[in-house]
Formats: sequence, structure tokens, C-alpha cells
Amino acid sequence: MNPKGLSEKEVLSLLNSARLKDTSYDKVLSAMCTRPHPIAVKAHMQFIESNLGDFGLFSGTKELEEKVIRLMGSLLGCPETYGYITTGGTESNIQALRTARNIAGKKHPNVVIPASAHFSFDKTADLLGIELRKAEMDREFKVDLNSVESLIDNNTVALVGIAGSTEFGQIDPIDELAEITESHELFLHVDAAFGAFVIPFLGKKYDFDFSVDGVASITADPHKMGMSTIPAGGLLFREETCLSPLEVNTPYLTIRAQHSLAGTRSGAAAAAAYAVMMYLGREGYTKIVNRCMGLTERLVEGVRESGVQPLIDPVMNIVALEVPELDRVRKELREKGWFTSITRAPRAMRLIIMPHMSEEAIDEFVSDLGKCIKTI
Amino acid sequence: MNPKGLSEKEVLSLLNSARLKDTSYDKVLSAMCTRPHPIAVKAHMQFIESNLGDFGLFSGTKELEEKVIRLMGSLLGCPETYGYITTGGTESNIQALRTARNIAGKKHPNVVIPASAHFSFDKTADLLGIELRKAEMDREFKVDLNSVESLIDNNTVALVGIAGSTEFGQIDPIDELAEITESHELFLHVDAAFGAFVIPFLGKKYDFDFSVDGVASITADPHKMGMSTIPAGGLLFREETCLSPLEVNTPYLTIRAQHSLAGTRSGAAAAAAYAVMMYLGREGYTKIVNRCMGLTERLVEGVRESGVQPLIDPVMNIVALEVPELDRVRKELREKGWFTSITRAPRAMRLIIMPHMSEEAIDEFVSDLGKCIKTI
Repeated sequence: MNPKGLSEKEVLSLLNSARLKDTSYDKVLSAMCTRPHPIAVKAHMQFIESNLGDFGLFSGTKELEEKVIRLMGSLLGCPETYGYITTGGTESNIQALRTARNIAGKKHPNVVIPASAHFSFDKTADLLGIELRKAEMDREFKVDLNSVESLIDNNTVALVGIAGSTEFGQIDPIDELAEITESHELFLHVDAAFGAFVIPFLGKKYDFDFSVDGVASITADPHKMGMSTIPAGGLLFREETCLSPLEVNTPYLTIRAQHSLAGTRSGAAAAAAYAVMMYLGREGYTKIVNRCMGLTERLVEGVRESGVQPLIDPVMNIVALEVPELDRVRKELREKGWFTSITRAPRAMRLIIMPHMSEEAIDEFVSDLGKCIKTI
Repeated sequence: MNPKGLSEKEVLSLLNSARLKDTSYDKVLSAMCTRPHPIAVKAHMQFIESNLGDFGLFSGTKELEEKVIRLMGSLLGCPETYGYITTGGTESNIQALRTARNIAGKKHPNVVIPASAHFSFDKTADLLGIELRKAEMDREFKVDLNSVESLIDNNTVALVGIAGSTEFGQIDPIDELAEITESHELFLHVDAAFGAFVIPFLGKKYDFDFSVDGVASITADPHKMGMSTIPAGGLLFREETCLSPLEVNTPYLTIRAQHSLAGTRSGAAAAAAYAVMMYLGREGYTKIVNRCMGLTERLVEGVRESGVQPLIDPVMNIVALEVPELDRVRKELREKGWFTSITRAPRAMRLIIMPHMSEEAIDEFVSDLGKCIKTI
């Protein structure tokens, strides 16, 4: 550390230089985050010093957090849910499976997850000492129920279903998974980190949330399609008792116990999530999702003209395209400024059409992809 | 969720009402957080959309994070350290012990921590399946080395020392703990979540950091005495190899692996930490710590006139006072607006004199405490 500090002007100049090296979201088709909504940014600023780790001091922020949980609960089929604003989907998945592990009390616990599950489950397994059993996908990249059944044994403590898979934007058959968990008396966790703020606003209806009996917990991230600021994940439980296994006593705070993974945690992000949900309402989110789905269809129609097909018809604003010479094409698109990514199995070009995308950008991308393919 | 959204004005009005219910820090003597420095808030705003979970998109922010880690390393005895900006002290402590556990590879791992350790270690133990063994304190509330030695066995994977204990602001004899870890070939983690931005700026010098051979990792929180915004913890390792046990592969991102606990994570908080450290430099932090220590001495001298003694002479800006009829006095102080807290063993009134405190507030508190005691 420097002996003397710099002036404000010097520091701001260093920050500006760094910020210029960050990517603008304009050509980013690989991210599940986007620019936060301006009202979320305003709220974040207003609550910047708020610490929900000691919410006895911040009872106003705490009320907002409780309201956000109810707002998300009402969106996900059960207004009376119990949970908190986490740092993101990873913390939510960790805490849900920690609850399941601690309730079951098995010596060598395992959890059956779809092969499509997010890599946060690998972190979770290492942290918690849980064996992960990865169930196969069917042809539509939903989890195969026979595969799930075959992996369950006496040490299985939970099943995981995905509503909005990271790679394919697919929705697992949550209602059928629920039947399996009920017959085996297992905990069912739904990872809807991305899908929670998309699926309820689609024209087609899906049973993926607390409306399905047997769903015990849901991951739902305001800082993805919820348009809120980082760090705002959401962890929701149907039963309040599910919070107990997460609790530790908190001497020397204004509160008696904590169930969050983090101690000190951002009140600003909770206030921001509240602000944007109240501002947009169902109507506002529906408009955003409709627009993203329109752009997604525009993209798929466009690339089809170059002979490129999606692996599945898009369920939400995530597309996996069968692109020939994938690595070369991706590299050339990168040289044209586009950020794309690649699915694991099968390998395909993965695109997420977030709210920061425009019609012009989609048309430009379709044209650039066409050119890259024609040079084969 | 409401069918229709509210207007911006309506949302801001709801936010204002909530914010008014939050406590102003003016009379808070129970918190390890404080108002963030204005330059940190500015930086936070500028980088509000930055996501270090996918830092290939945010290479400018990533550079700032790397610089922050070097700044903290240089402050803590080793400029070439390896780590990242965590969500806070809890994540740092979890990840340090996860590394130690995974390196050791024991079936039934245990970790010896001081009885004064923060409750985040209880979370860590439950998450990681580690047995915690709590070593006794000596009369000065430092960890008792004989007690530590007596708790070590073949399944011990790490020792923890505290530099700035949450309740007493005491510093464990890190150099002597290091001798024990070296003779037993154990991992030594130092929790300096609070102390890292205090101890280097005190008049008296302490060996508590990487200058002590054998210290493998340090927790150091910019969002406590570092004056930065939430969520900014710091995890530093002496050896780069210590990051490997934390890594997971990250398909479909712009990067190949992640060692953070969170996936999506705040670039804003890393930029804020960089900004405030560059703005203040050692000189700026020394002024802040000098001022807090001056206020701490003023408080201790003042309460001594009412016959109240501290359990130990304050090492840093944390004081534990032997107050008669503690619960009644605390309650009466609360009615006068003061937030104080209570240590576990022995029970005493715990006060943290943070940068938001003023001379006037300290004098008022001393006077109020005197009055509450005289009414006995």
C-alpha cells in the first residue's frame, strides 16, 4: 500500500481506465446477467451502508427483504415462503442441499442431479461432502426420469430439478420428479436461478414451482432476469422449519441467530430487488420476457436461413445452435466482438438473449454468423 | 407480485419509508461495519454492473481486484499473495479451512480454534463436516497455547489464530501458534477480518501476518475497518497452490475455472475496495485508526470515573467493560438510543469505537453510562 494516498481525481482516473477495459454488454450473448434496471441502481445507492447480517440495526431493510421473499413466493406458487436474499444461485443451492443433508442425517449422503445442472453443484458437493449422482438427459435435454430412479439408494437425501437449465434453457419435469421424491420421501430442490423470472411470464404455462406438491425449495435470482443488482440471489423454502438446520447463534449482534451463509451481507441488493419488482410488476416483467423471446425467435429464424438449426426449439431466451466448425466460427465471431459460449454435451453454440440485446444487434449477429459459416 | 408496477415516485417513497426505519450509525457501538468512504461509494456505482464471476467480460475490474489483493498483501507482510475479494469474513474463513481440509485429506478432520473465534467458524464446521475444538483463553483473552497443544491429534488439519477478536479486540500470539503448526505440519489460518485494517496502523507493532513464517492464509475485510462497501471480504494465501483445492471448472463462461464460493459476484465491491485503499494510503488509514484509538481511550478514561473498568487495556478500538447489573444498564442505554452488545464469557459490555463515532457521542455515552450505573 502506498504511504500517501492519491487525490480523488487521480483515483477516479484510475477507475475510468479500468472500466474502459470492461466489456460493454452490447455484444454479450454468453451471460445470464445484464445491466441492472435504473430503479434497482437507485435503491442500491440509497441502502449502500445497510447490513442485513445485523438486521436489528436495519429493520427497514429487513422489512424490504421479507417483502421481496413474499413477492417471489407469490410469483412461484406460494406467497407464504421462508427464505432470504442470498449472494446468488450458488449460495442458494449450497444452503438448500445443506438443509436436505442435515435433515436426513445420513453418513454418506448423495444427491441426484440432472447432468445439465450448473457447476455450482460441484462446489456444493465438495463443501458439504455430498456425492453427486448425475442423471442422464432425454433427447430434449430434460432429465431422464428412469435414470433418476436408477440412481436413488438408501443414502440419497435429495433430488434436484432445473427450471431453466444454464446450457439449454430447458425445464425438467418437476411434477414427475416430485412424484419420485414423494414415493422415496426425499427432499426436492428446484434450481430456477435463471428461470424464476422468465417462466412465469411465458405464454405457455409450466408446473415448475411451489404449485407442485413436493417442491421443498427453490433458487431464484433477482440479479439475473430479475433485473436487479449483484449480489441478489434468492433461496425460498416451503416450510419454515427448513431454515433451522442453517441457523447459528449470533452472540454480540442485535439479532439472536443467522441462517444466511454470509455474515455481513448487502442490504442494498435486497432493497434493489424490492424496488425493481415493485416498479415492474408482472406486467413489466412480461414485457421484458416477451421482448427477449421475440428477439430469440428472430435470431433462430435468421440463422435457419444459413442452415443452422437449434438443438431444441427455444423454451426460453437461451438457444443452443448446431454450428459447423464450432471453435473456428466462435473465434471469428469473437474477433467481430461477439461473446458466445459452448455447451458441454453435445457441443453447440450457446446464446442467451438478455434484455440488453437489441433487434439491430441480433440482425448483425445473424449476419456475422452467416458470413463465418459461408467461409467454410 | 402486483399485476401492474408502481410509478418511480411511488417506489422511491416506499424506499424512503423503509430507510427511515433503519438505524443511523451515530449511536451504534455494537457494529464492526461503518459508513463506507465516499470514494468507495463512487467506485461502487461506476462498477455496479460488473460481475467478477465471469471476469473474462470484466478484465478491467479483474485488474483492480488483483491490485487490491496485492495492496492487502503488502499491508500484511507479503505483496505476492494469492486470493480474491470474497463476500465477507465468513466466506474467507470457510474457504481457508476448506483448503486446509482438502489438502490434508483426513477422514474425520478437526480444527483447533480459540474459544474467542467468531461464530462464522460454527457455520464453517457444519458446512465442511469439520469438528471444531475450542482452545481456552488466557487471562488476557489470548488463546492459551497449552490448551491448543492438548487439543491437537492425528486428525487435526489446521489451527486458527485471531488477530482482532470480535469480543475483546485481542491478538493471539500468532508467532507461537506458527511454531506449533510447523512442528505438527499443520495449516495456520489467521482471522484478521477486523484487525487487518487496524493492527498495521497502531503505534505498537505486532507479528500477526505473513511476516510470520507458517501463516498460510489470512482473512481481511475491506468492508469493516477498510471503509469499503459491502460485500468486500478478503481471502489471502501465501502459496498459489492453496487456491487449487477451491477450483471448479466453469464451462460456458469466458473463464475456465473459479475458486470463489459465489458464482456471480460483485465487481463493484472490488472496485470500491481498490478506490478507498488508493485514496487513503497508509497515511489515511493511520489517521482513521489513530482517531478511533483516541476515542477509545477517551471512553475508557471517562467510564473509569464511574468506577467501570475494562477487562483488558484496549489493544484496538474494541472495549469490554465490567459493568454492574449489565442487562439492566444495557437496556437503559438502549432506551437512550445506544446500541451496545455483550461478550459471552465473561459477560461484559462490548463496545466498538468505529470511525462513525465522534468525541461528542463518546462524551454523551460516558455520561449516559454513568447515570445508568448511579441509579443502581
